[in-house]
Amino acid sequence: MGILMKGKPVADAIKEELKAEVQDLKAKGIIPKLTIVRVGADPGDMSYERGALKAMANINIDTDARALPENIEQTDFISELEKINADTSTHGILILRPLPKQLDEKVIKNFIAPEKDVDCFNPINVAKVFEGDETGFPPCTPSAVMEILKFYNIELMGKNAVVIGRSMIVGKPAAMLLLKEHATVTVCHSRTRDLPLVASGADILVVGIGRAKMVNSNYIKDGAVVIDVGINMDEDGRLCGDVDTDNCINKASMITPVPGGVGSVTTSVLAKHVVQACKMQLSLL
Amino acid sequence: MGILMKGKPVADAIKEELKAEVQDLKAKGIIPKLTIVRVGADPGDMSYERGALKAMANINIDTDARALPENIEQTDFISELEKINADTSTHGILILRPLPKQLDEKVIKNFIAPEKDVDCFNPINVAKVFEGDETGFPPCTPSAVMEILKFYNIELMGKNAVVIGRSMIVGKPAAMLLLKEHATVTVCHSRTRDLPLVASGADILVVGIGRAKMVNSNYIKDGAVVIDVGINMDEDGRLCGDVDTDNCINKASMITPVPGGVGSVTTSVLAKHVVQACKMQLSLL
Repeated sequence: MGILMKGKPVADAIKEELKAEVQDLKAKGIIPKLTIVRVGADPGDMSYERGALKAMANINIDTDARALPENIEQTDFISELEKINADTSTHGILILRPLPKQLDEKVIKNFIAPEKDVDCFNPINVAKVFEGDETGFPPCTPSAVMEILKFYNIELMGKNAVVIGRSMIVGKPAAMLLLKEHATVTVCHSRTRDLPLVASGADILVVGIGRAKMVNSNYIKDGAVVIDVGINMDEDGRLCGDVDTDNCINKASMITPVPGGVGSVTTSVLAKHVVQACKMQLSLL
Repeated sequence: MGILMKGKPVADAIKEELKAEVQDLKAKGIIPKLTIVRVGADPGDMSYERGALKAMANINIDTDARALPENIEQTDFISELEKINADTSTHGILILRPLPKQLDEKVIKNFIAPEKDVDCFNPINVAKVFEGDETGFPPCTPSAVMEILKFYNIELMGKNAVVIGRSMIVGKPAAMLLLKEHATVTVCHSRTRDLPLVASGADILVVGIGRAKMVNSNYIKDGAVVIDVGINMDEDGRLCGDVDTDNCINKASMITPVPGGVGSVTTSVLAKHVVQACKMQLSLL
């Protein structure tokens, strides 16, 4: 029977470390601050925002939640963003995406100050993740995957890591972060032939493909470490991952649950990025 | 006995196509132009420059070779670069690298106009290669790999591609370009355990690790397609690749020679990027 790698202890450990760092900064008169920019009132955005605000408050990171009108024009959005860029009291900026149609993300991404871009929207940070440059901020989800692997002492050097999914918010950056830790990395996707065969070569399997319980024990090598990034609803309307956990847990040595796995670490990673951004901006790193 | 995939016919086909395109542009009064920026007089740089100038002349692309003093200061270099950025007669800029020590590439890369950056120096283009956005220019060498695979009708969708090497000029961009064509891509490197085993799972093997003749038949699956990106000197002072071609040619179905393989396609790719840049700048694409 494999071990469930829960996210909470990982998040708690990150938070404890950050609390100490934030306290040190406070002693120097510095308070890290995250500004969240939300356009409209999408329930998913609002739920994520509430979670993020709560996590920041818990660590004593200041926050500012800007709610912009659903129909805001691009020039107005950019001018709001530039004000936040210029505001030295804000160290991290999170723009909740996707943005409504009148706002062109391909244009806007170039305007967020790279040093405040804590969720990898600006191409400067995208390039840094590709290059393995640690002064950039990877997207929070693949960063959370790496935090979990680190917390549970999973050795990566020379191991075979297989990533299922090639999105820019999970698969590709996860592949680059694993490569940076010297894993041999395979990226699979919907066109991969014999996916169970490829996946079952993995010592570490990261799944972020967005299909409920698609990965069963045929995809798992005996003793593999499985990280499930998916968040889906099953037929009974219950939250589930991309991995059929019950079916895999006897074959995997360790597996993250959904809910309670990767998703419970992302806001702690966000907080970590804000503190790191704050320190970099004040030349404290 | 495998087939040698020579670079020359690939380069010739690209050149023929470009000549026609350049002729069409000329009829509209447009002449694509590449400006090469060289600092100092490194023999390798000068040799590459001569080859590039000759290739452009052959296709009727205008060129301007700027030789800057070895000891040029960063601010002066940047101001030269900005003049070239602003010069509307230049559509592509190639800065020969590595630059001397007083010039910080991490700073300078941000100054080359992304739309003229035909060899993937600016992070905007690096991010586009990572994202699979075709409006960016990948580095010329991995682009040449893809041109060879296309010319020789190698199917990529769903195939297992293994890339040995994870540099930013070959391995990582090659991995992204293969992924864009829907191959399942594995990136290997010096820390990979049992590299011959991993490599011999490849339908398409791309080798860019910089070690003379390292890859022998133990790394090759029967019938694999092998692309050798290495350029090294063997013990007798002769040019050779990272693959021991003689040893592998009976196992591989197709293999690129060195010299005469990937290296003979790169300047044609450079020319292709210049024409593409010219058309994009004039909104003709």
